Amino acid sequence: MDLSLYITGVDLLGTFAFGLSGGTVAIRHRLDIFGVIVLAVAAALAGGMLRDMLLGATPVVALADERYTLVALAAALVAFFFKPLISGLGKPVMVFDALGLGLFAVTGCRKGLEYGLDPVVSVLLGVLTAVGGGLVRDLLVTEIPRVLREEIYALAAFVGATVVVVGEYLDLADWLVTLVGVSAAFSVRVISVIYGWSAPRSPWP
Amino acid sequence: MDLSLYITGVDLLGTFAFGLSGGTVAIRHRLDIFGVIVLAVAAALAGGMLRDMLLGATPVVALADERYTLVALAAALVAFFFKPLISGLGKPVMVFDALGLGLFAVTGCRKGLEYGLDPVVSVLLGVLTAVGGGLVRDLLVTEIPRVLREEIYALAAFVGATVVVVGEYLDLADWLVTLVGVSAAFSVRVISVIYGWSAPRSPWP
Amino acid sequence: MDLSLYITGVDLLGTFAFGLSGGTVAIRHRLDIFGVIVLAVAAALAGGMLRDMLLGATPVVALADERYTLVALAAALVAFFFKPLISGLGKPVMVFDALGLGLFAVTGCRKGLEYGLDPVVSVLLGVLTAVGGGLVRDLLVTEIPRVLREEIYALAAFVGATVVVVGEYLDLADWLVTLVGVSAAFSVRVISVIYGWSAPRSPWP
Repeated sequence: MDLSLYITGVDLLGTFAFGLSGGTVAIRHRLDIFGVIVLAVAAALAGGMLRDMLLGATPVVALADERYTLVALAAALVAFFFKPLISGLGKPVMVFDALGLGLFAVTGCRKGLEYGLDPVVSVLLGVLTAVGGGLVRDLLVTEIPRVLREEIYALAAFVGATVVVVGEYLDLADWLVTLVGVSAAFSVRVISVIYGWSAPRSPWP
Repeated sequence: MDLSLYITGVDLLGTFAFGLSGGTVAIRHRLDIFGVIVLAVAAALAGGMLRDMLLGATPVVALADERYTLVALAAALVAFFFKPLISGLGKPVMVFDALGLGLFAVTGCRKGLEYGLDPVVSVLLGVLTAVGGGLVRDLLVTEIPRVLREEIYALAAFVGATVVVVGEYLDLADWLVTLVGVSAAFSVRVISVIYGWSAPRSPWP
Repeated sequence: MDLSLYITGVDLLGTFAFGLSGGTVAIRHRLDIFGVIVLAVAAALAGGMLRDMLLGATPVVALADERYTLVALAAALVAFFFKPLISGLGKPVMVFDALGLGLFAVTGCRKGLEYGLDPVVSVLLGVLTAVGGGLVRDLLVTEIPRVLREEIYALAAFVGATVVVVGEYLDLADWLVTLVGVSAAFSVRVISVIYGWSAPRSPWP
């Protein structure tokens, strides 16, 4: 399968997952339908927009390809009308957020490599792509962003992006790298929330 | 009249209107002269900068054309020295904000079409351009951004941008499209505030 | 010495100084090691990323050159492990922030001139580069950004950037302009904090 088509598919999935997370945060904050759309679209598109602006891949893909907008809007409507269904999933914001995190960490890092960036920097770009959407979402409702509030968040994105670099180095198949990378980031994130893992603080008070 | 000259004129008007809104917010927060300048410049330039970075129209016009900076500074000084005059207008932040919203929704959408973007995406770009300045302004003073707090805000920008797409489709004169688009966005916004219109919330608690 | 090499050196110093300021803010907020890294990297890279995105100098130098990432990570680790040392400096966040402010004001303005921007706009770009990192840092921990909270902050960056424009006009040596520009911005900022200088507020209540 064509690689760029492949990336687009994974990217659109991440867009949908983050869109659901944004819509669900909006509903929890008792926002109206427009607030739900704004927050869903912002969470869905901000990470990829940041990635493309940093790379100079402009017009950013979220503008160049109208499917991104349509997927983000669809996520907003699903969140608005099927909220009870989504809530049945337990911690819906966390789960969709973790899924989007993994998907965007992988596409962000891969796009960096494609543009010829150094592997270290491609991992950074993957992390920025992954945390960007959630960051804008949380800032918009003036919550402390998850990326700072929660222990294992940027780290999960880092793990997912690192899988891509290692997979590229070992010359593994793209679908395999994507599957392992997304699963790794998602698992690290979700398991850390379930078990309440935390990281060391600075040894000095 | 030359189209790009035309867009620039409308864009500079929007810059001035958002600059006034930023300066007035700063004064209401009892900031000093530099705070007024920072907030006026941020509100005035952020929307257009975001638009141009997303399109890859770089250096962004707010840097390429020094009139944007000068207009933003002029708005800051007007807000600082003539505040009583502005306050006489009733709800000055809301009015200038609504005007900037309409002007930027129109120029943002038109610039998207000019860059060959899909109409749906051009409307999104118009909305982002329109809400960007107010977003940065409100985040800087850590208020919940107007675009989320108030019911009919992004919608007003959406209406203004949609007029541009429809006008382009019907091949209407630019001045007419601009006039109708700006008036529509401005009216929807101001009337919704006056009458306290609100939008439906998610049907589930 | 080659000019672009020269700018890179000054830029990396600014990256390190802002990285330390971000790491120190994170520790003060009792964040874990990942929070320290996120805040250090964000503070260190955001200003330069914004500058390059606005100019269209993409991929932005913080991605194109992996030393920026490494320097930002080094600053995070130094902040994490040597915090008592840093605290011995008195007001560490303020001092590193002031140093980064001066260094980035100078490189931002110079890069603007290099891209053929008008001097007025180059000064604006210098100020945006200088305040960008601290802005993102403060927004991430939902504090009112220093650029608005404190009287003489954007002004210090403005002074540093203006020195570059004047130096260019007088055709002075680059190292001299850099030294004077950075010292001027740093001094204005630090002295204003020590003496509690403040700027006039709007004359009307």
